[in-house]
Amino acid sequence: MIRVGISGYGNLGRGAESALTLCPDMELAAVFTRRDPASLKIATPGVPVVHEDKIAEWAGKIDIMILCGGSATDLPDQGPRYAKYFNTIDSFDTHARVPEYYAAMDEAHRAAGHLGIISVGWDPGLFSLNRMMAGAVLPDGEDYTFWGRGISQGHSDAIRRIPGVLDARQYTIPVEAAMDAVRRGENPQLSTRDKHTRECWVVAEEGADLAEIERQIVTMPNYFDQYDTTVHFITKEELARDHSGMPHAGFVIRSGKTAAGEACTIEYALHMASNPQFTSSAIVAYARAAAKMAARGETGARTVLDVAPALLSPKSGEELRRTIL
Amino acid sequence: MIRVGISGYGNLGRGAESALTLCPDMELAAVFTRRDPASLKIATPGVPVVHEDKIAEWAGKIDIMILCGGSATDLPDQGPRYAKYFNTIDSFDTHARVPEYYAAMDEAHRAAGHLGIISVGWDPGLFSLNRMMAGAVLPDGEDYTFWGRGISQGHSDAIRRIPGVLDARQYTIPVEAAMDAVRRGENPQLSTRDKHTRECWVVAEEGADLAEIERQIVTMPNYFDQYDTTVHFITKEELARDHSGMPHAGFVIRSGKTAAGEACTIEYALHMASNPQFTSSAIVAYARAAAKMAARGETGARTVLDVAPALLSPKSGEELRRTIL
Repeated sequence: MIRVGISGYGNLGRGAESALTLCPDMELAAVFTRRDPASLKIATPGVPVVHEDKIAEWAGKIDIMILCGGSATDLPDQGPRYAKYFNTIDSFDTHARVPEYYAAMDEAHRAAGHLGIISVGWDPGLFSLNRMMAGAVLPDGEDYTFWGRGISQGHSDAIRRIPGVLDARQYTIPVEAAMDAVRRGENPQLSTRDKHTRECWVVAEEGADLAEIERQIVTMPNYFDQYDTTVHFITKEELARDHSGMPHAGFVIRSGKTAAGEACTIEYALHMASNPQFTSSAIVAYARAAAKMAARGETGARTVLDVAPALLSPKSGEELRRTIL
Repeated sequence: MIRVGISGYGNLGRGAESALTLCPDMELAAVFTRRDPASLKIATPGVPVVHEDKIAEWAGKIDIMILCGGSATDLPDQGPRYAKYFNTIDSFDTHARVPEYYAAMDEAHRAAGHLGIISVGWDPGLFSLNRMMAGAVLPDGEDYTFWGRGISQGHSDAIRRIPGVLDARQYTIPVEAAMDAVRRGENPQLSTRDKHTRECWVVAEEGADLAEIERQIVTMPNYFDQYDTTVHFITKEELARDHSGMPHAGFVIRSGKTAAGEACTIEYALHMASNPQFTSSAIVAYARAAAKMAARGETGARTVLDVAPALLSPKSGEELRRTIL
């Protein structure tokens, strides 16, 4: 059995705990938290909840530690620190800072003789893998990534910071016409506005200036000004009733030509009723791979691009060849 | 530069030769044929064309040999024999005999200290990879594979063997309603007839009994009797004008639930104006990976499930992390 630790018990940590129940070869060994462990009720009976300050005491008792912290401040600090004690896996998702984080994790893991897979999830993660593989098979072509329809946490948060806003959810929506043009092999040049629209559901304070809130949303630099954005004001009850899920979706399309000029497209599409639960499921599959790679003596940092797919499965190579190939 | 040999110069061999022109890190070293080499004109200037009988003389001069023979008789004979001299890659596609072929190739390659990747292409190949990965991420779910709209060579050949038929092309067509039900997460139970229809374009001899030809087609065991099949009689000229391409398409859809019961689907879709050219492009990307794995000292047989994706790319890990992750 692969002994798994979960560090951080938010949406991702709870999702990983849940995903482990579908893995016959993995067991949850402990959950680590910065909160008072006595205050934290986890779903799995009999599993210890431990304060993060004591995480080092678990070295040798955990085969793979799932780091569920955020990319802005948690992971850059925790990742290299915890690499001293554990093999790790995380969902570091600040695309621009991946090389820097990779270097820090690679150094820490090599020094400690551990292995860590960084930036696992769907983007970065499964989408990165599909962009890379499609580009290798069709070198002469263009990549297009579309996100949605789904909740963007960052954009929802940005709306909530506007004075007069009590709560908000923002959906990122891909433009169907743009996706269809890509699928037809037209290789269109698409601006930011051409690819996605943004739909906002906002609960305002009583008496708030709705026109001013809408103006502040649609003109917000980077977040909204480059998009066609629609704003809907609704009640708190409507928001809770209609917009409390965390669905998402996404599409990676490679449109290219073979060397002899024949058009081909490769498309990878995800539809998720719950973004954090899907992401956790992907992380747990890669946690299995990380534990296997570490058990072979591999050390240092890895990404999804470095992981042989068979390692994600609990099945043997023989069974996979017989049933899936 | 990775030195590549091509054994067999049919559609697949020509496609591989063509795909190599898009690979800055690979070069065609020689083409091997069972025909008279003097009679074979290849597309790449200055590359030797050599009779298969002399292939052993090229040991040490080829980093990866692409075996372009058929799965029925060529590969089971050539594969283990050529493994003595070369690292190999092939598109062995008789799903039921993969374990047996893998075992023969594994033994031959290990004995010789070479490496071979078998069963590369899109199915088996990229589709197998996607079935496996989607199953690892969503263990609670069902796989659905649809093929087409595209030409099935085997079914076209079967029609050509009917007395009175001069030529024929058969398209396999997925049933859209079935695909949509799968995409909606309904996890339908689908019979063979529910998933695909078959469309036949037939050139008959003058005076042939068309009703009898049609009857023989639609009742042909395994090939057609389990499908809704339509038969169209056309002229030789119409067949050449409208049905001379080798397009294909296909879809792998995993419909599942996370452990907490949230519905998710993962879909991988290919559209190819030329099936053999796309297949060759995939084979050439995996040929690069095979050469790299062999250069590290790995030996034995592998499948796409065993290949770390980054090895498919001519780009460095550092560049991939910076630009694609």
